[in-house]
Amino acid sequence: MFTTYTDLCSAITATDKKLLITAQNHLDNLTKPVGSLGRLEEFAAKLFTIYNGEFPLPLDPAMHILAAADHGVYAEGVAQNPQEVTHLMILNILRGGAAISVLAKQNNMHLLLLDAGHKGTCPKCPNAVRINSLEMSGNIAKEDAMSLECCERLIVLGAHAVHEGIKNGYRIFSIGEMGIANTTPATALFAELFGLEPVSITGPGAGLSQEKIAHKAKIIAQALKRHKDVHGKASALQILASLGGFEIATLCGVVLGASAMKCPVIIDGFIATAAYAAACCMDKNVQDYAFLSHASAEPGYQKIVQCLGQKPMLDLGMRLGEGTGACLALQLLRSAQAIYNEMATFKDANIEISTYIPQ
Amino acid sequence: MFTTYTDLCSAITATDKKLLITAQNHLDNLTKPVGSLGRLEEFAAKLFTIYNGEFPLPLDPAMHILAAADHGVYAEGVAQNPQEVTHLMILNILRGGAAISVLAKQNNMHLLLLDAGHKGTCPKCPNAVRINSLEMSGNIAKEDAMSLECCERLIVLGAHAVHEGIKNGYRIFSIGEMGIANTTPATALFAELFGLEPVSITGPGAGLSQEKIAHKAKIIAQALKRHKDVHGKASALQILASLGGFEIATLCGVVLGASAMKCPVIIDGFIATAAYAAACCMDKNVQDYAFLSHASAEPGYQKIVQCLGQKPMLDLGMRLGEGTGACLALQLLRSAQAIYNEMATFKDANIEISTYIPQ
Repeated sequence: MFTTYTDLCSAITATDKKLLITAQNHLDNLTKPVGSLGRLEEFAAKLFTIYNGEFPLPLDPAMHILAAADHGVYAEGVAQNPQEVTHLMILNILRGGAAISVLAKQNNMHLLLLDAGHKGTCPKCPNAVRINSLEMSGNIAKEDAMSLECCERLIVLGAHAVHEGIKNGYRIFSIGEMGIANTTPATALFAELFGLEPVSITGPGAGLSQEKIAHKAKIIAQALKRHKDVHGKASALQILASLGGFEIATLCGVVLGASAMKCPVIIDGFIATAAYAAACCMDKNVQDYAFLSHASAEPGYQKIVQCLGQKPMLDLGMRLGEGTGACLALQLLRSAQAIYNEMATFKDANIEISTYIPQ
Repeated sequence: MFTTYTDLCSAITATDKKLLITAQNHLDNLTKPVGSLGRLEEFAAKLFTIYNGEFPLPLDPAMHILAAADHGVYAEGVAQNPQEVTHLMILNILRGGAAISVLAKQNNMHLLLLDAGHKGTCPKCPNAVRINSLEMSGNIAKEDAMSLECCERLIVLGAHAVHEGIKNGYRIFSIGEMGIANTTPATALFAELFGLEPVSITGPGAGLSQEKIAHKAKIIAQALKRHKDVHGKASALQILASLGGFEIATLCGVVLGASAMKCPVIIDGFIATAAYAAACCMDKNVQDYAFLSHASAEPGYQKIVQCLGQKPMLDLGMRLGEGTGACLALQLLRSAQAIYNEMATFKDANIEISTYIPQ
């Protein structure tokens, strides 16, 4: 559907905010004190605007898109785990043994793995596609992660996965990732996109010591300096190509694609949020389509959500990635949908609305 | 099974905390960084102790017990809504139109309504039982809510509902309530059980103005003074009979019953938490079996969870009661269960555990 990045971005429009009033009127007419379902009401109203006033509110079926990749910056000693864990975890995810495999199944979501380029062969499997033949991105401390052309191509392929999903009936998408060392490019992206100091937002990832976190922050600062020297004040697309990673570019494309095709998209975890942040800087209207699922435990996350002006749905101390929090968040959206579609109104229940609404 | 309150309490024992170590060893062996599933791991380990080391970890089917009642203290002008809303909402719940009806169905929970005594006829319906012929509790500002005998009887009937549920195969329970004016006895209970100042924990309930909240706090203080004058330093059972309500006593029995029969119980909302607080003061071991689902928006709630030493699972600004948050929390427990039962170990995935565990 979208053959270029420019076409994709030009298809994204804001949702109709007048529908928020229609939705709130409906919610206020249901048999409960006004506003008493809290954020479930906010979620339902946002879904109503995304689906452009469709009633009953649709939602399922749901597709979780997990993008995986390897990273050149791994060579700088920024990761806790060996790089081959990316490949082993791809196998584990596809065999059904990873947390995301279990949670996607438990929460009735189709899991699609996009191998965005890693050191290893992507297994032949109906729900896995290799979309990039390179085996890792460039080492961002010394060179661009990828060319602009590669970045645009991965974005278009991410959007294409959403397009195919919609053709197969999916109406909501979520994103997650796997890639050893990928909190480093994610942190670099946040720093450059939002003008944050690397040292203030660099965290332990899968479990670095304080000493190694300090080293990681230095590598990120080095990458930012290199980026500035080469590209100066750059577009979000250029920043993503220079400081991102293959899976991050792909997920950025999923977010842009879902927004262009007017589907909700659940953003889960630190790295997926970096992909989302890049998408927001490309077109701020993507915020109209996105739900932040679980708060990240990385120390920079609070600053980052302030920059985004959004609030995550859950905070259970999870820090695994893969999109695990998105599965839990989807259940909350399903509950919001059910409330919106199925609750009785005051008239149905013979309750005088004037008496059941707080002053 | 339990014919008296004393029998019931004497059947409650602590869970075996050594099983927490077994559970954590299992969790640490699954293909994820140690501890990276945050509170999902805590929930899984707690369930493992409750089910006494059963593997695979059981959970479903789930039964939500909603107790409803009317309150004499309504006469003091402490509620926003007319008292007949209790009856209308019982009808609405049983017809499937209330938030709890929709959310219990959406989240695959059986809903049982215990009519603990209200002004109106309980409809004939397979999932509703009237367990008390009185039409409302005493006005706690002027008299005991109920006799000790009535309180014990409702507790035993609450436990009996769990016992019947277990006979029918249910393995997890949750509690919620409906009863116009019931934040007043709930607040009075918290104040007396935990020695808190009424004015510091009295809130708007379904939507009182500041002026009416001040009036409500005065009525609660009056009830506490009356209680002290009549009963002095009393047992938790006496406090519940003096300052509680029919649905609160019933739900206290559900908590004691679930604990005695070693089933997890999800506690949702301000009033259900008051029932739970009373149960904790009767036997602190009930904490081993309980999960606090959604944080209450009532201003006293933070102090109360500090007193309980527990942390709720969700905070989505909900303040509806009925147990609506329990339905959302159950999904989190199901995800914790799935992780525990289905994830691959490092050995399964051929990953060297030494490399995937943070130092």
